[in-house]
Amino acid sequence: MDKLLIKNAVIITMEGKESIFQKGDIAVKGQYIFWVGQVNSVPKEFVPDKVIDATQMLALPGLINCHTHSAMTMMRSYADDLPLMKWLEEKIWPFEALMEEDDIYWASLLCCLEMIKSGTTTFADMYFHMNSVAKAVEQAGIRADLSRGLIGVGPEAESALIFSKDFVAQWHHQANDRIRVRFGPHAPYTCPPDYLKKTIKLAKELDVGLHIHLSETLSEVNDIYNQHSLSPIELMDNIGLFELPVIAAHCVHVDGKDIEILAKRKVGVAHNPESNMKLASGIAPVNEMLNGGVKVGLGTDGPASNNNLDMLEEMRTAALLHKVSTGNPQVLPSFQALQMATIGGAAALGMADEIGLLKKGYKADIILLNTKKPHFYPRNDWVSNIVYAAQSSDVETVIIDGKIVMEKGKVLTIDEEEVYRQVQVRTEKLTEKLGG
Amino acid sequence: MDKLLIKNAVIITMEGKESIFQKGDIAVKGQYIFWVGQVNSVPKEFVPDKVIDATQMLALPGLINCHTHSAMTMMRSYADDLPLMKWLEEKIWPFEALMEEDDIYWASLLCCLEMIKSGTTTFADMYFHMNSVAKAVEQAGIRADLSRGLIGVGPEAESALIFSKDFVAQWHHQANDRIRVRFGPHAPYTCPPDYLKKTIKLAKELDVGLHIHLSETLSEVNDIYNQHSLSPIELMDNIGLFELPVIAAHCVHVDGKDIEILAKRKVGVAHNPESNMKLASGIAPVNEMLNGGVKVGLGTDGPASNNNLDMLEEMRTAALLHKVSTGNPQVLPSFQALQMATIGGAAALGMADEIGLLKKGYKADIILLNTKKPHFYPRNDWVSNIVYAAQSSDVETVIIDGKIVMEKGKVLTIDEEEVYRQVQVRTEKLTEKLGG
Repeated sequence: MDKLLIKNAVIITMEGKESIFQKGDIAVKGQYIFWVGQVNSVPKEFVPDKVIDATQMLALPGLINCHTHSAMTMMRSYADDLPLMKWLEEKIWPFEALMEEDDIYWASLLCCLEMIKSGTTTFADMYFHMNSVAKAVEQAGIRADLSRGLIGVGPEAESALIFSKDFVAQWHHQANDRIRVRFGPHAPYTCPPDYLKKTIKLAKELDVGLHIHLSETLSEVNDIYNQHSLSPIELMDNIGLFELPVIAAHCVHVDGKDIEILAKRKVGVAHNPESNMKLASGIAPVNEMLNGGVKVGLGTDGPASNNNLDMLEEMRTAALLHKVSTGNPQVLPSFQALQMATIGGAAALGMADEIGLLKKGYKADIILLNTKKPHFYPRNDWVSNIVYAAQSSDVETVIIDGKIVMEKGKVLTIDEEEVYRQVQVRTEKLTEKLGG
Repeated sequence: MDKLLIKNAVIITMEGKESIFQKGDIAVKGQYIFWVGQVNSVPKEFVPDKVIDATQMLALPGLINCHTHSAMTMMRSYADDLPLMKWLEEKIWPFEALMEEDDIYWASLLCCLEMIKSGTTTFADMYFHMNSVAKAVEQAGIRADLSRGLIGVGPEAESALIFSKDFVAQWHHQANDRIRVRFGPHAPYTCPPDYLKKTIKLAKELDVGLHIHLSETLSEVNDIYNQHSLSPIELMDNIGLFELPVIAAHCVHVDGKDIEILAKRKVGVAHNPESNMKLASGIAPVNEMLNGGVKVGLGTDGPASNNNLDMLEEMRTAALLHKVSTGNPQVLPSFQALQMATIGGAAALGMADEIGLLKKGYKADIILLNTKKPHFYPRNDWVSNIVYAAQSSDVETVIIDGKIVMEKGKVLTIDEEEVYRQVQVRTEKLTEKLGG
């Protein structure tokens, strides 16, 4: 199938607030969007191989999850309602220490399955055994930005750098360019300045970006300040990290000066409201960042601290949280929230000219939501309905890179039953080893 | 059908944290739960008319929505991201002024449809044209606690009291006792003390409770304090409001003294986190209320300020919000959040010995969730999976008062298409009258 025509959809292009077709058509040719417009406006020379009748469906750009750790699906609901250090030291790290190459593959495939089903077409991931994640992404047909997590203070500091170099060589721009690779220095408190400088140098040589956790908790910010008399953002700026394209996850505890740096250096911030709430890390000043010109996208963080990968929910939570935290019901209105989950996320990943809009020439990452649901009636405002009322299960059809990956709720690239079975058996084996 | 057997379900009874059957059966006889236990433990003399095989399904008590305004479904996504008074004065009130008896019926039926589909089996409602709401409830087969909203300062102050009296006579304990009726004084700032006293007297005579909005915004609290040198809660206590069973919606701005009163007077608090966030009203001190012994249930508030009626989402938002607002990830753990949506809500409505648990002798309000979904794998912890990962669309079968109201996603009591059509046409007519 090379030419696909989606007919009769309500189309939210995300090109602007008014750019909505109440009844429109989208033509897809190969990987790309060939046409978006009113119904029956597609040029006559476009002869589709397949037509999807999207009557009563709503077409959106695929959602973009800017920060997760996909294989942590295996630890979903494994350790909740705990203080951060107890959660990490007694539950997460011991579990991770036992995870092997194949576990990561199946857990990542479960992650891809859940993301596709909930309308996510691109995700940025940082973890280990990344070849397994890349293989899962290749099979699932999803788009991803992948980084091997780097810990500068551990035994694998050097080997992980070497792995990362090979990983770039092996996977960057692979799978029809659905996969992009970065270096993944974990955080300023696990990667000392010298190690970060080495990482930056390597990433520069290979012309790739970086993905890092920054200013997630107040104690991190205080610790870095005590050591360097600088905030984590300032320290990273001094070291030269922001000379490269960077995804900075969290940025919860940032001040006006930090925000200026993030804007000036064009850092892509991944805001993870539900994870920050669940771990009680704090509330990121998202409104200030957006007003300050920072590129802010949305992420779920790993499913051990969320516990799902539902970007519609994440978007809604963001829109609600920043209203109450600022005391202003006009903050983060629905269209701006939807931007963060689409074109805003694309910008944070440095892909704003490739994905995040339904626009001629963009990669064909398109989701169709079934609006024949009680929560979609009456049709007062499509964007408000999506942000404040929709469910990720409304997503019925998902097209990524021009290919139909899910049709009418059925994911075509993954054997669901086998994924459930593998993940369940493997999780039981690991928890048994850990003593229940 | 008089005898129903649900087999092979994972059963979360909500009787206690450990009260979970990994594979269990539930027997229903007439309106009531006759048996809950391990698979094949139902007494032999129970011969079912119908058997539901609930393999891979999770059984929970039906969810309880303690505060909404059902017919506001018509204003879903009609007015968002606005300051409170502009929202009310320019959008909500003019719309409401045009709504007629039949509009309220269809809008309430849409509300019932959405609630049933998302696993809510009981809701507490305050609005006007309440005969229409009662008729919708009767038809939908749902359980409800209904109040005619009373405004003491408006032209309908007296007529609404008379209506309420008749409404009690006509609907209290009707529809096989699925309907209960209260008086609905709107709030202390719309009902002066004398009017409240008259309402209390009438409610006492008729032996019914009250449903009221209390301490929703800081300006309300300040205004009442300026007038009476008392907080709204103290004022209500002084007036004698709490001598009757009361549902107090919101209680956002309450202090230690207020919490003591709410606990001592056994007031049922309806916590509406998403509405409070969306309108930027504030964050209720739910953890303090629960620790202080207050009965706290959950509500969605009306769909104009939410914008859906999704109680699974509301529960998750509550669990996340109070962690970040207290800075403590151990606050409102998953089981406690699930309690608030089930037995906690039942207690807030004064029905803790009738609904909210899967227990012999309780009304048979049961929901079955399909767990063959990516976000339910692996099976590390059922309660955490429900609270932090599930979607309301996982609900497939709903039993209310012993009757199957939804089976495999199909609501049996409501003509969905007709509801969508009626609500859409009626909404368009009203918005046209309002000039678009």
